[in-house]
Amino acid sequence: MEFESLKGIKEYLPEEQEVREYITDILKKNFKKYGFRPIETSILEAFEIAASKYAGGEEILKETYQLTDQGERKLCLRYELTFKMGKLIALNPTMRLPLKRYEIGKVFRDGPVKTGRLREFTQCDVDVAGIKNLAQDAEFIAMTFDIFNELGLNVFIQMNNRKILFGIFEASKINEKDFINVALALDKLEKTSQKEVEKELREKNISENSIDILFDLLNGANSVNNNTQKLELLKSKCENELFNEGYEEMKSIFNYIDIQGIKKDFYFIPTLSRGLGYYTGPMWEVYLKTSKIKSSVAAGGRWDKMIQNFLQSEREYPATGMTFGLDVIYTAITEDKIKLNDFDKTPKILIIPLDKIDACLELVSKLRQNKISANIAYDDKLSKALDYANKEQIAYVIVVGKKEIESKKYGLKNMLTGTTEELNIDEIIKKLK
Amino acid sequence: MEFESLKGIKEYLPEEQEVREYITDILKKNFKKYGFRPIETSILEAFEIAASKYAGGEEILKETYQLTDQGERKLCLRYELTFKMGKLIALNPTMRLPLKRYEIGKVFRDGPVKTGRLREFTQCDVDVAGIKNLAQDAEFIAMTFDIFNELGLNVFIQMNNRKILFGIFEASKINEKDFINVALALDKLEKTSQKEVEKELREKNISENSIDILFDLLNGANSVNNNTQKLELLKSKCENELFNEGYEEMKSIFNYIDIQGIKKDFYFIPTLSRGLGYYTGPMWEVYLKTSKIKSSVAAGGRWDKMIQNFLQSEREYPATGMTFGLDVIYTAITEDKIKLNDFDKTPKILIIPLDKIDACLELVSKLRQNKISANIAYDDKLSKALDYANKEQIAYVIVVGKKEIESKKYGLKNMLTGTTEELNIDEIIKKLK
Repeated sequence: MEFESLKGIKEYLPEEQEVREYITDILKKNFKKYGFRPIETSILEAFEIAASKYAGGEEILKETYQLTDQGERKLCLRYELTFKMGKLIALNPTMRLPLKRYEIGKVFRDGPVKTGRLREFTQCDVDVAGIKNLAQDAEFIAMTFDIFNELGLNVFIQMNNRKILFGIFEASKINEKDFINVALALDKLEKTSQKEVEKELREKNISENSIDILFDLLNGANSVNNNTQKLELLKSKCENELFNEGYEEMKSIFNYIDIQGIKKDFYFIPTLSRGLGYYTGPMWEVYLKTSKIKSSVAAGGRWDKMIQNFLQSEREYPATGMTFGLDVIYTAITEDKIKLNDFDKTPKILIIPLDKIDACLELVSKLRQNKISANIAYDDKLSKALDYANKEQIAYVIVVGKKEIESKKYGLKNMLTGTTEELNIDEIIKKLK
Repeated sequence: MEFESLKGIKEYLPEEQEVREYITDILKKNFKKYGFRPIETSILEAFEIAASKYAGGEEILKETYQLTDQGERKLCLRYELTFKMGKLIALNPTMRLPLKRYEIGKVFRDGPVKTGRLREFTQCDVDVAGIKNLAQDAEFIAMTFDIFNELGLNVFIQMNNRKILFGIFEASKINEKDFINVALALDKLEKTSQKEVEKELREKNISENSIDILFDLLNGANSVNNNTQKLELLKSKCENELFNEGYEEMKSIFNYIDIQGIKKDFYFIPTLSRGLGYYTGPMWEVYLKTSKIKSSVAAGGRWDKMIQNFLQSEREYPATGMTFGLDVIYTAITEDKIKLNDFDKTPKILIIPLDKIDACLELVSKLRQNKISANIAYDDKLSKALDYANKEQIAYVIVVGKKEIESKKYGLKNMLTGTTEELNIDEIIKKLK
């Protein structure tokens, strides 16, 4: 039998998994602080439910792993956590709203494997169903800064609003049927030139007049740095109902962001357009300030229609939320060796027995009673055990021979500095705690 | 479209999932204290690997979910975490041993759905590969008591050793080919009578003479309470190499258990026989002391051969470890309402706005800066918000109207006692922290 990794499927060794758990622990802690509670939905799902046009949609369905159980039921593996949240609401009609939930779990997509695209990967989703108020959207922005601050990563956030974007298109006399296409073209502005985007718009049969008005509006807005001024400038030029709705929404959000003490790194970007298939109002992307990584590390937006459509319900389920990219955050943290050294590695200390192990077992037992992570190098010789401690980057080592057993004094070796101190067990505990 | 739960597949609402995360957090914390590190293996696996006769075996393979990806590869969903640990070692031949790993993750079995048997469920496994020393097995016993102590559950542990069990059979002149069958019959002793077991043994063609010797040995041992005395008594009657090996192993383990300060609730049970398909030496089961739940809540043992066989390797991979039953521990904890009230529920406080929400947002923002989990009842009227807080068992509520906004004094209502205190924000933080 040959042991091979499956294409696009990763398995995580302790060095990697420890960092991943460190990240998800910080996510969970902050999700809870902002009032979110965990749920766990199943990975296996009835194919019919996942295939609903109001679940993930046609494109994603092509990448869905399908299977049949022994009862000949058509099943599949979930490809996202969002529709699963909708199903949980459907299955629990008496559930009290708002549901503020987070879920961190595996999803599966049988798609082409490009760099960074996996077939089995973890999503970290945090959403509310049942809150219309845009202050909730502003809370997500505050939470995002809290999370990346605790992770030691500097980020900035870009926000736009679907109503602003489409309001600008309306003011530019673009036909509604072209809105999505124009948005997709505009979204490339950061990677390419205005000329290239104009060319693409022409190819999509957008009139010269519309293109002129559009870039006049956008360039005018971009000449201003302050979010509120940018918004007001656009408002003075876009007199339509859709834009006005977006304007009022963004004004509220700017205020709520301000109240929460966020003074910088939050930018209103009128060309930003993501997830237009489901976002209905504000939408935002989170980027690293100084990093080789240019893709977003988290993203979010308001999706007021999806649950209602999915449930085919009379009732409204306004919703807003975010997703955090575990893999990209992992890459960002491990880019920086200094940050990695901050980890509390397991174990903190390795006890190496030269003689009977009884004394060693007594020692680890006392360390653990004091919540210090400790191991014994049971089967290894001294040189091999020291090499192991070194390569595994274990912080401290104690070698226990006859002398130590008799004197009850142990040489605590700091593996980073190489220095050794003679200490009794209480002194060791005090030092390592 | 009809929304239905799949048979044997659960989805967990916040009330349940919070308890599950509380349990796994305690498991992880103790696993780390005892020097274990996390890994994450994939759920999708090549069918060929899962089907190896040294993986889960034939019976489990019948219950394996199979699927084919778009590249026509034959895949399956993992049905356990053990063989995945073996594969991780196979894929990383330069890995330094011992590997002390834990993994908490979903496994899948397409089997009959009985009470408590799920088709998609979570396993919590903690194992070492690369340590022969039986002190490691004794460490697991200490860790188990630490874990259940922290969970607030009183447990006792029963241990036996495959070599003791089979050594007794040898001393009873039972043929080796009948060992497994006799063990399976004996394991029923706790649920049925000696007479019934004797009858089963006769049906399996075990001679009267063997049955007599066997029960003479076992009843003799069971008349003694002390583990060491029981072991010595059996030794005086079982003079064979296999028994002697088991005897030496158990004597060491009893000593190591003693060194770690374990004085009670640990029982040597010479009839215990579980997992004889893979356990090679000591094996143990963990039970609740006072509970309606009679099945074990955790179990473990030494499995020195499995990885070597699975990898078809020259090298030995001695291994020992445990599995903790998340679902049964969940049931045990929720049996007892008092224990449930100890949970730190999310959120701790609900702010109900009667007027502008700006002041409320400022308030939650300050609470969260002080690590207090807080929510705003955005869209609800006062009566509905209070009802929500009540039913969701949120500990505190503040109603914020014009008066509160002006005076900056808030009525902090304790929802359990019904009492309200007038406090400013600093006093509230001090109280809730």
